[in-house]
Amino acid sequence: MKRNGKLRGYVALAEAFRSGTTTPRAYLDETLSLIDRHDSRIKAFVATNREGAIHAANASTARWRNDAPLSPIDGMPLAIKDVIETIDLPTGQGSLLLEGTMSGRDAASVRALREAGAVIVGKTTTTEFASFHAYHETLNPCDDERSPGGSSSGSAAAVGAGMVPVALGTQVVGSILRPASYCGAVGFKPSHGAINRSGSHDHFSQGCLGAIGATLSDTWAALRAIAERAGGDPGHAGLAGDPDLTGRTAPKRIAVLETGGWSSATEGARAAMFEARRRLADEGIELRSRADDPAIEALEQAIADALPLTLAINTWEGRWPRNTYTDRDVSKLSASAIERVRAAEAMTQNEYRELLVRRSAMRARFAELADRYDVFATLGASGAAPIGLGSTGNVALNTAASSLGVPALTVPVLQDQDLPLGLQLLGSMDRDATVFGAAAWVLRSVFDRQDLIGPET
Amino acid sequence: MKRNGKLRGYVALAEAFRSGTTTPRAYLDETLSLIDRHDSRIKAFVATNREGAIHAANASTARWRNDAPLSPIDGMPLAIKDVIETIDLPTGQGSLLLEGTMSGRDAASVRALREAGAVIVGKTTTTEFASFHAYHETLNPCDDERSPGGSSSGSAAAVGAGMVPVALGTQVVGSILRPASYCGAVGFKPSHGAINRSGSHDHFSQGCLGAIGATLSDTWAALRAIAERAGGDPGHAGLAGDPDLTGRTAPKRIAVLETGGWSSATEGARAAMFEARRRLADEGIELRSRADDPAIEALEQAIADALPLTLAINTWEGRWPRNTYTDRDVSKLSASAIERVRAAEAMTQNEYRELLVRRSAMRARFAELADRYDVFATLGASGAAPIGLGSTGNVALNTAASSLGVPALTVPVLQDQDLPLGLQLLGSMDRDATVFGAAAWVLRSVFDRQDLIGPET
Repeated sequence: MKRNGKLRGYVALAEAFRSGTTTPRAYLDETLSLIDRHDSRIKAFVATNREGAIHAANASTARWRNDAPLSPIDGMPLAIKDVIETIDLPTGQGSLLLEGTMSGRDAASVRALREAGAVIVGKTTTTEFASFHAYHETLNPCDDERSPGGSSSGSAAAVGAGMVPVALGTQVVGSILRPASYCGAVGFKPSHGAINRSGSHDHFSQGCLGAIGATLSDTWAALRAIAERAGGDPGHAGLAGDPDLTGRTAPKRIAVLETGGWSSATEGARAAMFEARRRLADEGIELRSRADDPAIEALEQAIADALPLTLAINTWEGRWPRNTYTDRDVSKLSASAIERVRAAEAMTQNEYRELLVRRSAMRARFAELADRYDVFATLGASGAAPIGLGSTGNVALNTAASSLGVPALTVPVLQDQDLPLGLQLLGSMDRDATVFGAAAWVLRSVFDRQDLIGPET
Repeated sequence: MKRNGKLRGYVALAEAFRSGTTTPRAYLDETLSLIDRHDSRIKAFVATNREGAIHAANASTARWRNDAPLSPIDGMPLAIKDVIETIDLPTGQGSLLLEGTMSGRDAASVRALREAGAVIVGKTTTTEFASFHAYHETLNPCDDERSPGGSSSGSAAAVGAGMVPVALGTQVVGSILRPASYCGAVGFKPSHGAINRSGSHDHFSQGCLGAIGATLSDTWAALRAIAERAGGDPGHAGLAGDPDLTGRTAPKRIAVLETGGWSSATEGARAAMFEARRRLADEGIELRSRADDPAIEALEQAIADALPLTLAINTWEGRWPRNTYTDRDVSKLSASAIERVRAAEAMTQNEYRELLVRRSAMRARFAELADRYDVFATLGASGAAPIGLGSTGNVALNTAASSLGVPALTVPVLQDQDLPLGLQLLGSMDRDATVFGAAAWVLRSVFDRQDLIGPET
């Protein structure tokens, strides 16, 4: 069930579960023993419910034995970022004020996972309100001296350490892609609205619920299981499609983006991306960049602004609920949380309206390119994870996808300072399956990393 | 401060507050004495915070005395529908399961009202989860034998009885317009997204936060005070503009709609609408209907479907959080809540996608007419409030605005069975101020009801 001391992909084991060669209960036992072994050091989890997980895994084992699984992820152990509500465990949002808060319900996504037979193992650490300040001391599983990134810190660390095959995360700026890149995991931020956020404490117009996983197959299967049952955000039909994960179909044309923040990429990261481009070209992919296509150059100019624009939008949208928490007990809020309330109060509705107009213009620029490229490639982060736990790292290379609202997937095939670095593939709105298909081909044909895809087809 | 035993408009008193002729504290005392006098019978409130209200009104009185009000609604007493969170009072959502739930925070709208100096008096009754089942026994203030309508039952009753000048409500199908029409109040459902719903338990793609008020001025001022501070839903700039409430500018052209559900309107309601059309025409307004404009006929055909379409969309979107509440204690849910979970579980993501396509087509049809008419007129409800508390009434005439996402305002100028009936004016997306301006002209020039506008200009 393990490979190099880490759990193997889950959906790849369907036949073994059916035949009884192994069971979801055995997979969970392995999960729990890995948590026992690693988590006192890594501190990815804020809470676990072992009894509930064992109960759910036993029920799943019986369903597979009767050839009646509820879904491909029936029995899959998952960890949940602690901004997403769970009926059995508190939702503390990484905040001193909200520590231990029982909401008395599951988020829409968590309830859908349970309906699909999944096993909710526990809650993972996040920065305060999934924003900047980190109270937790979660370590990067690849290097104890480094940050796992944020705000989906514990989800990335738990998957990177091989403790769970998939963990839910959320991203408003760079909170899925960046920690996944740092921890050597697959990270997926879906198209805006593709996964129902109800009961996830994310009230931002760029916010997304997504996942960090060890393989493409498990990551996709978990999110599709949610979308089939809970849909997307209200008014969005939700994540759909059926990606070609055999890795046999090459994308035709890839645009290489030096997104806003490229200048902050480390030398090692740039060299890794340069080498990745060469290898893609060697496989016959048509790669274009701003040197070849003025429309790409225009897009890069438009998204150069993505980070400051995103931060300003988030300032206005983040006024609530932080402002009401200041009424409750201001001593339990970080200085940065209080300062952001003050910054929001200084903004006007008209300023916010102008920010939305600028974002719409950026999106329109991207939409013009949507039919010309299968996917867009860039770095998953500006480099390896930063040393120390004082910062969750540079978000500059992760913000474009958030600002544009488009799907983005990072796969851990590059390196910087001998540590993991993601290759990020972005797609056009609601073409999430296309991004997964392209990533599968890249993993198989360019990097020979079938293990990151999933089933050994 | 009162007229016919009811409170006078609030923003009209600005000069009196400034000069000290009267004070926000005196206005609140009047409010509390009216609640004492009427609410043991009407039962519009589920909870009040008198001490907090008095404290807030005293602070407001001092600000006006110092000529430093925080906003035009500084000191205005408001009631809040009990699906919207308040830090000082429980949010029970009309549910046996959630009765007494303290959320520990204000909704974005409530926090914004407090920032504007408003006085939150209490929470008003609603049906279970603002849906169908009514556990409360709120009476219609115009006739004790009748329902106040729903789901913003208590908000409409409190305003209709003259206990508060404005109350917040929410609408997904017909939950603001219908009770306002039944209780003889102004009711306003803004453009979709125009008022920030964060912290209001409304997870529906057609959901809106709006208000029921005694006058146009107070209703508009309260919602604008929210939008200036909390904006719209994330990604929407929020309610904007400055309506001409002098009532001196006539709309040029009005389309009269016999929206879906017209066939269910009572004879009295149809006669009242017929008479209203005649009076509008007498004032020189160009009125058009399906007989005059094939585009209106096409729109009516499109929106004939609005109610079944809305109910189907709501079934899918209402799966959560009801499904997770069934895990908690199914015995505290109504039969209809449980049945709706089952209906949602029987739906597929593809079915939902098709419903969204149908709704988009309806909206496109309306958008074609947007520039051709200033406003669209129809009935505020299918007739007078129903007798008995078993039903909150027929929503058929209220659903078009919800389904289209456009602003709709009902003003209590018609009658059916000697009871109030609203005239409903709909506008185009984000032209909420235009609808208020048109309504002011109609109230002043056609119905001679300056009292429903506000300041005696």
